[in-house]
Amino acid sequence: MGIGDDAAVIHPKGAREYLLITTDMLLEGIDFRLEWTTPRCLGCKAIAVNMSDLAAMGARPLYFTVSLALPAEISERWIADFYDGLTDPAHSMGAQLIGGDLSLSEEEVSIAITAVGESRRQRVLYREGGRAGDVLYVTGVLGRSAAGLRLLQTGHRNSRSRLRQEAIHAHQSPEPRCDAGLWLAQCGSVRCMMDLSDGLSMDLPRLCAASGVGAEIDAEKLPVYSGSRRWKLDPAELALHGGEDYELLFAVPEAKSYRFEDAYPPHLPGVTRIGRLTGDPGKIWMIDREGRRWPLLERGYDHFRRRPEQKQ
Amino acid sequence: MGIGDDAAVIHPKGAREYLLITTDMLLEGIDFRLEWTTPRCLGCKAIAVNMSDLAAMGARPLYFTVSLALPAEISERWIADFYDGLTDPAHSMGAQLIGGDLSLSEEEVSIAITAVGESRRQRVLYREGGRAGDVLYVTGVLGRSAAGLRLLQTGHRNSRSRLRQEAIHAHQSPEPRCDAGLWLAQCGSVRCMMDLSDGLSMDLPRLCAASGVGAEIDAEKLPVYSGSRRWKLDPAELALHGGEDYELLFAVPEAKSYRFEDAYPPHLPGVTRIGRLTGDPGKIWMIDREGRRWPLLERGYDHFRRRPEQKQ
Repeated sequence: MGIGDDAAVIHPKGAREYLLITTDMLLEGIDFRLEWTTPRCLGCKAIAVNMSDLAAMGARPLYFTVSLALPAEISERWIADFYDGLTDPAHSMGAQLIGGDLSLSEEEVSIAITAVGESRRQRVLYREGGRAGDVLYVTGVLGRSAAGLRLLQTGHRNSRSRLRQEAIHAHQSPEPRCDAGLWLAQCGSVRCMMDLSDGLSMDLPRLCAASGVGAEIDAEKLPVYSGSRRWKLDPAELALHGGEDYELLFAVPEAKSYRFEDAYPPHLPGVTRIGRLTGDPGKIWMIDREGRRWPLLERGYDHFRRRPEQKQ
Repeated sequence: MGIGDDAAVIHPKGAREYLLITTDMLLEGIDFRLEWTTPRCLGCKAIAVNMSDLAAMGARPLYFTVSLALPAEISERWIADFYDGLTDPAHSMGAQLIGGDLSLSEEEVSIAITAVGESRRQRVLYREGGRAGDVLYVTGVLGRSAAGLRLLQTGHRNSRSRLRQEAIHAHQSPEPRCDAGLWLAQCGSVRCMMDLSDGLSMDLPRLCAASGVGAEIDAEKLPVYSGSRRWKLDPAELALHGGEDYELLFAVPEAKSYRFEDAYPPHLPGVTRIGRLTGDPGKIWMIDREGRRWPLLERGYDHFRRRPEQKQ
């Protein structure tokens, strides 16, 4: 089926379902720091990133493989904890470890995971397919992971505050939206979907580019993580540009949107209507209550551009 | 189907064939050096390592994904050449690029490739299945890649000698034995198989362990790369311990072995009878013409142990 968005889609001869394959690499110093996490949390995060790619296309996780490169000083205990961190959440999402590769690195830990999922009834959601007028939704809360990262950067790793721990946990062990992604792909109302890995300001333009549309975001409707205000962080700033939330961004035709909201199962992470797609390709606007509008500038994470907070 | 040997084996519901999935990571400084190769050759090698894993189980290559982490100073031209190096040989083997991931690294190039293949008629060859008395074979020549590595290490990268170029090329752009692997899996005579990535002295014990047998190698029958003698290298030493030949090692029941050799297609890389499996688990012996025997010691490449020639 060629190159997908968050995952590649293949159709094995005679198989009832499509298979989706996604691969991601996490590198020490770029994607994580050993001193800010535990091996178990690192395993959780590595698997979450890949499961989120499957969730983003509406696939059910089946299998994963792990390639791991470790410097010689990493202990066996570390490796065992890391694997537990990988396999425990993976099993709870239905994915089984089926292979891997372990090698020596010079200095840094590198992790490459490939995950395989299947789409039920061949319903795969792509980034393309959105149309002008569609309602934009996100799952969950945006900016909590970025708040957690800021806390880590300012030395709060071992904070006893529950709120701080919660934000740090969201950064260290994000929860991929597998069940929600699967339901959204099956419900028949969603036209396009992706996961938010680099922040809304980076990811929404990708969805719009794939669908050939623009978008308007209702600034006050964003499900921001208000807890970050306590730490003198700007919740809206983190929600727009923070990244690593691994929530789902998707579009539903306006006419179906209320029925969709009624049908959405309450046990899944909540969804919020944040704006709409427009017929002005590539233009992304923020709109406030008074109707004032300003362009949403890309300030999330991109390849070959460092996150500002990682410049040291 | 659980964890395989060189690749994981899965059976999608309703599909006619098994799918095989393999993943490998190549790291700068450990698996390659940028100053000893070109981006195109590096791409060739990265894809060869994975295709060889599929060949080792008798699978036909279908798809692959690439995760690439590059330092900021790598040029677009380099990336384009690397991708050509990946995709040109992959296409000629029937494999299509279906996805990937590009990210920034601090200093070094990391490459993780996942390849997907299918086994025709569900005939997969594992490392297990060999029995005492089976005849051991290898494809091609052993030790040429290691000779090429030694030449690179001693400053012969730009040698104009055709023989030197040939050895260096074998190291930089190994040819995975896809067609041979597929034929061997289909012919019905082969009991177990693997590819030689770490050298016979490391890999043969793995085959023996999986099959619960021992082995005897006829020292003078090894298809060594005699060209290395010109450079004062020991061809037998390189054939046993060199690694990265990506030839196939497999076993055929003695009673079928002559018919097997007659049926083996002449257009495929030649196969050589190098010894036999024995009922003495874990014991691997070298035997010379006079019947003298000595144990084959593991001195190939292993994870968490550097190749001696890479210590600097």
